[in-house]
Amino acid sequence: MFLWLEGRRQPMHVGGLQLYTPPPGAGPDFVQNLVEAWREYPYARAPFDERAEWKVGHWFWEQDHDFELDYHLRHSALPRPGRVRELLALVSRLHGTLVDRTRPLWELHLIEGLADGRVALYAKIHHAMMDGVAAMRLMQTVLSKDAAERRPPMWAQDRPSRPRREIQATEETHGILDRVLAAGAEIVPGIRSGLRELVRAAEPESAEAQPFHAPPTMFNVRISGSRRFAAQSYSLARIKDIGKATGGATVNDVTLAVCAGALRRYLLMHDALPERPLIAMVPVSVRSAEHDAGGNQLTILLANLATHLEDRLSKMSRLERIAHAAAMSAPMAPSMLTGYAKRRPIYNVVISNVPGPTERLYLDGMRLDESYPVSIPVDYLALNITITSYAGQMGFGYIACRRSVPALQRMLDHTDESLAELEDALAISRSA
Amino acid sequence: MFLWLEGRRQPMHVGGLQLYTPPPGAGPDFVQNLVEAWREYPYARAPFDERAEWKVGHWFWEQDHDFELDYHLRHSALPRPGRVRELLALVSRLHGTLVDRTRPLWELHLIEGLADGRVALYAKIHHAMMDGVAAMRLMQTVLSKDAAERRPPMWAQDRPSRPRREIQATEETHGILDRVLAAGAEIVPGIRSGLRELVRAAEPESAEAQPFHAPPTMFNVRISGSRRFAAQSYSLARIKDIGKATGGATVNDVTLAVCAGALRRYLLMHDALPERPLIAMVPVSVRSAEHDAGGNQLTILLANLATHLEDRLSKMSRLERIAHAAAMSAPMAPSMLTGYAKRRPIYNVVISNVPGPTERLYLDGMRLDESYPVSIPVDYLALNITITSYAGQMGFGYIACRRSVPALQRMLDHTDESLAELEDALAISRSA
Repeated sequence: MFLWLEGRRQPMHVGGLQLYTPPPGAGPDFVQNLVEAWREYPYARAPFDERAEWKVGHWFWEQDHDFELDYHLRHSALPRPGRVRELLALVSRLHGTLVDRTRPLWELHLIEGLADGRVALYAKIHHAMMDGVAAMRLMQTVLSKDAAERRPPMWAQDRPSRPRREIQATEETHGILDRVLAAGAEIVPGIRSGLRELVRAAEPESAEAQPFHAPPTMFNVRISGSRRFAAQSYSLARIKDIGKATGGATVNDVTLAVCAGALRRYLLMHDALPERPLIAMVPVSVRSAEHDAGGNQLTILLANLATHLEDRLSKMSRLERIAHAAAMSAPMAPSMLTGYAKRRPIYNVVISNVPGPTERLYLDGMRLDESYPVSIPVDYLALNITITSYAGQMGFGYIACRRSVPALQRMLDHTDESLAELEDALAISRSA
Repeated sequence: MFLWLEGRRQPMHVGGLQLYTPPPGAGPDFVQNLVEAWREYPYARAPFDERAEWKVGHWFWEQDHDFELDYHLRHSALPRPGRVRELLALVSRLHGTLVDRTRPLWELHLIEGLADGRVALYAKIHHAMMDGVAAMRLMQTVLSKDAAERRPPMWAQDRPSRPRREIQATEETHGILDRVLAAGAEIVPGIRSGLRELVRAAEPESAEAQPFHAPPTMFNVRISGSRRFAAQSYSLARIKDIGKATGGATVNDVTLAVCAGALRRYLLMHDALPERPLIAMVPVSVRSAEHDAGGNQLTILLANLATHLEDRLSKMSRLERIAHAAAMSAPMAPSMLTGYAKRRPIYNVVISNVPGPTERLYLDGMRLDESYPVSIPVDYLALNITITSYAGQMGFGYIACRRSVPALQRMLDHTDESLAELEDALAISRSA
């Protein structure tokens, strides 16, 4: 399914960007040596050695007998002056190119040249191979809590073997909307009280859903093949403080409110703020504790972002209330995918929140400092915001079609302003 | 036509790689400053501001009103240790990605980080926008003989305006085989005596063409989307000395013989040398002096590379003789493009020779040292060799599908060996 949906304007891979501090005493050749050490693992294990093969009318996973590590593992560098800006420019370019279909559908880029001496790692994995949740699990198997530990690189790790198999249509269409549009992201289980039950009870045609008529926006257009990525981290404590000050909003509620404020500012700047509020699609995990092993049960929440209102505090409370009432489930997927969204957007933007590791982690002795998801813009959803948590930080990753969403990097300033505005309104003393 | 032929495995852009020495006194920020100076030209002139638009069943060139220079002009860097090897790896990657169809079909990469302090420039232009000959003319308008001269960058130069127009099918199919397969390359006018007449007289079905049954080789397979580029320069004097020693072989004759030797060695290494000789397709300019303004008259020469023979001197003479007899013209194009080549290759490899400037040239004070074409591999022609001359040097550019032509970089060693072997056989004292 992802293989079919994909086109040159619409690559179907998810990405992750991570920033690391090299171990003490690392010299200028540190990254070069790391790449060379990783090249000592020239063979990949499943699924990293598997390519998609079209045979007698079906896609199969087949082992790539000509696996060439040099194609997948890439050593790159930033030009001067080596700021985060240059890093984001490079990741924007890398995320806009298609993976080679004749090979296993992944790339791993080790990037040197940040002026502050840090090392960036950008991973790109096709959605047909792995979704965001699986990618997050993968991250945990590669990283260690122990700075002294060395593990084999991600493609070379032992994993439970699985039989070579056909890529199932059912497997692919299961949770399709999530997997296509949210790029495998899931929200932190449970948006406050009683959500799980509400989600289960809600019907796509239910009255609660009716208020959600998303206005047409600049985000709801056909996209181009070029991308812009922008990313920034905020302290989880700041988000939590805001939640406390409002009397109990969850991290997700606050995150949505921050994004709503940033979107409002961005649209105002472009003189493109609709009179009606923007609607965000928020993938929500409804997996219960007992059935955790059962995998990935996701549904969709439509959240009214109240972007038409300037008053942030009233927006905040409204946001949670309306969000809770508006849960919808997957049956809308087909209309989403068959161009219904072209005539009338069902929602304007995807905002997902992927929970990440809470403890400080290391990769070959490098300390992981920041972690960002890089998701998938699609036709009529030119902007995707995916947020991930790691060790007390929330990493906001904005990915967009570079043509329909110009100057996306401004969204970072707007996010700063939106967060500060909430703090001001709630009279929270700011701690950077 | 090029827009239709193009697919994710088969991008239809040509490229050029140039190596420059910065002006005396250039500091570590030289490239950064140059990029910033070029950003002072945010508007492009035709054809650099034109994108291909599909309207009512036809492709048109239309002005891109949202032209974004930052997308087209890219500042990149090489990772350590910054050898030519790292440069070729980067160009291999860059050449393997598709241009964004929603924008003007070009990219320009300024690359810093070579350990020797030189600067690389890689340009990528879609074949629908410009062919190799036009690209070569463009190069002349951008470069100067005067190290002190500063000209506007290529996209910002004044050019005779042309009406916005439909992309003509006739325009595109004219010389299609050349334009698709040789990527706009032309050979130095006239391969020795009487060629022009022979080319004109030859018919596709003529008896002379019959001996050319190209054997199936590893180069004549469906290609993948990934590329490998390898390049190296040789002194034109060495090529000419060999020609003289054989009693009058042209630069093209010798170039073909050098490539033939390299191909033979490469195929032997892979235990894949066919018993029958490889056939190269060589685009030949038949433009006469009187009709020079009439543009680009190209035909195709099929050259027996005699790769089945070890004896180089006898091969050399045979090469020119058979090549002369085997001129064929364009009518074979349709069969080439419709998969005839799949069942039986008409030729095995494209080798073109694009004449370049003879004098030393400068770009914004940087001295151009080396210049290489980066051409187009296509299905069943997984390897393309294009050679260009510049200021007493011959730059050999090998571009191939990375999957079907593994370890292409070895071809450089084989080219060295092939050249040295010719010199040894002819008892020429070698001058590096």
